[in-house]
Amino acid sequence: MLKFEVLKQCKKSRLGVLHTAHGDIRTPAFMPVGTAATVKAMTAQMVKDTGADILLCNTYHLMLRPGAERVARLGGLHKFMGWDKPILTDSGGFQVMSLGALCKLSEEGAVFSSHLDGSKHNLTPERAMEIQYLLDSNISMVLDECTKYPCEKRAAENSMLRSMRWAERCKNAFIDRAGYGTFGIVQGSMYPDLRLKSAQMLQEIGFDGYAVGGLAVGEGQQVMFETLDIVVPALSENHPRYLMGVGKPADLVGAVQRGIDMFDCVIPTRSGRFARAYTANGEINLRNARHAEDHRPLQADLDCPASQTSRAYLHHLVKADEMLGSILLTQHNLTYYQSLMQQMRAAIAAGNLDDFVAEFHERQARGDIAPLVKT
Amino acid sequence: MLKFEVLKQCKKSRLGVLHTAHGDIRTPAFMPVGTAATVKAMTAQMVKDTGADILLCNTYHLMLRPGAERVARLGGLHKFMGWDKPILTDSGGFQVMSLGALCKLSEEGAVFSSHLDGSKHNLTPERAMEIQYLLDSNISMVLDECTKYPCEKRAAENSMLRSMRWAERCKNAFIDRAGYGTFGIVQGSMYPDLRLKSAQMLQEIGFDGYAVGGLAVGEGQQVMFETLDIVVPALSENHPRYLMGVGKPADLVGAVQRGIDMFDCVIPTRSGRFARAYTANGEINLRNARHAEDHRPLQADLDCPASQTSRAYLHHLVKADEMLGSILLTQHNLTYYQSLMQQMRAAIAAGNLDDFVAEFHERQARGDIAPLVKT
Repeated sequence: MLKFEVLKQCKKSRLGVLHTAHGDIRTPAFMPVGTAATVKAMTAQMVKDTGADILLCNTYHLMLRPGAERVARLGGLHKFMGWDKPILTDSGGFQVMSLGALCKLSEEGAVFSSHLDGSKHNLTPERAMEIQYLLDSNISMVLDECTKYPCEKRAAENSMLRSMRWAERCKNAFIDRAGYGTFGIVQGSMYPDLRLKSAQMLQEIGFDGYAVGGLAVGEGQQVMFETLDIVVPALSENHPRYLMGVGKPADLVGAVQRGIDMFDCVIPTRSGRFARAYTANGEINLRNARHAEDHRPLQADLDCPASQTSRAYLHHLVKADEMLGSILLTQHNLTYYQSLMQQMRAAIAAGNLDDFVAEFHERQARGDIAPLVKT
Repeated sequence: MLKFEVLKQCKKSRLGVLHTAHGDIRTPAFMPVGTAATVKAMTAQMVKDTGADILLCNTYHLMLRPGAERVARLGGLHKFMGWDKPILTDSGGFQVMSLGALCKLSEEGAVFSSHLDGSKHNLTPERAMEIQYLLDSNISMVLDECTKYPCEKRAAENSMLRSMRWAERCKNAFIDRAGYGTFGIVQGSMYPDLRLKSAQMLQEIGFDGYAVGGLAVGEGQQVMFETLDIVVPALSENHPRYLMGVGKPADLVGAVQRGIDMFDCVIPTRSGRFARAYTANGEINLRNARHAEDHRPLQADLDCPASQTSRAYLHHLVKADEMLGSILLTQHNLTYYQSLMQQMRAAIAAGNLDDFVAEFHERQARGDIAPLVKT
């Protein structure tokens, strides 16, 4: 049982708070991804300092290593990784089904071989919920099938219907307790009628929140937004809405305008390990030689040690392949993402999200500060 | 000009403070190595939090990338890397001469090809001092030749004498200013008469401190200590004494007992990236399966987030090849090294270093806590 409060509404956008056994999540919220019980290149304290209220961990990785039963014996994921705030786990389905030939699907669930040692594993709806229970995840996601894009309608329908049967099995397997909950996932590819059917079926089962899955799979921002325009109005106003695996800053902004409350994405962390910074002035590639003698901070108006670091030093660290380059750029990207969410929350509270969004796009379009003229 | 004060003497060991333009260095001091203007896997703040008063950077790496002139244009190394405390730089000689066939030595200096792009460079005594000046290093080391071990006496003598001629050229090239200084380096392989001759010649030139070079090159701890027993008494009591490239905890303890004031070594940082922890209870390999379900902290009595992390989590991070494993083990190792120096300083101040050393060896010999019995 998770309690969700909508504090303020601004057109379709909502300012809310989701209460869990490990504290409150201010929404709209961005969840950094901590795949293997660590947000790559960050200490738990650094993640906390970015302003994150919750992070996401991956069932697939953790069930294989160190193993869900082991995490349970060690007191659960929060204690294991030194993160005392809320944790959401995915069901493992998306990654298992990305294994291709190493994974076989049936009505029962998935049978797959570990990418680590080839060992065979079963992932049924019931086992997915059990693993997330053992991990002590605050928000357990149902096992579902994520269709590829594009996907023929008949296949999309069959897949969605199976996902709905799995969702019901997950709900039945979920052990409810105060401050813990489970979210259903809307599927149906890009077909409005399938999406609406899926949303309806999930709400008949009844979940603590509703995710939109099967997006950010190559369909492009416009199709994604069109799908949200159809799906979100069909979702309960009293529950959080979670757009899975999204996205770049402009994706987050557009989805918040369409009524989404939660996001997760590897972009800020993965990009940080590849010399790429997301800033209020757009994307910056620190590998570019224009930064080599630029003493100016990465983003002057962001209060974070990494954002205040000179571009010249970041450029040097990236060129020298130093771990500190990944650390600082990940820290900056996560801080920027959290500041973007905070600014949107403040704008919704003030009732002027549209103004904020216009300013956001204007600054992104203006781009980075001009290069220093060589003296 | 650097001011050095000996505050307390305990047999041969000294408690001191070295004043620089960027603050005081409490001695005996351990300097973490920040090769390419970063202590690998650490932010500057994390290094500061370990208790380090000074760090060492490598001239060879920095002259090639980003280049000494570039660092100077960016305001010097402290500003470049966000470290406002003292910095010592080596002369580049040791690493240049480790390039083997890529390096040619003559009386003038070294000509070598960069390991990065094959470009040709000169490293003379004068250029070594100029680079360190451009980097804004608080303590510049003279260019010297470090003999291999073992080394025939005639070769050791010729090499030492050349190093002494280079030392004089370095002293002449050094631009003296308040809070900055230059250290000579005693050479002479394991030959007592050559070592004494070198110590005498350096002191006739006159430096702000005296280093013992050419040790920790495979001669073993006993020979190293024997050499210190000969060299240290021949060095000025009013100047800091620096043992280069040393070492493991027991090496530091034995060298402090023999009157050494400063150390640098890559062991705590490099080992941290290879799953190895140095603790008051000896060395621990976190890759070992015995730690997989051990919920106990790495070192319970050390006040550092990494030392307080469970062995099970560190084991997981190491096995999963996660950057956070390197980050935490480096942080722990540096904190342990600094705590060891702090304990030695306190023991010298209290006049009971021998008691501390006995306890140190007793605890190291006792080894790590017993493995948890599987339940």
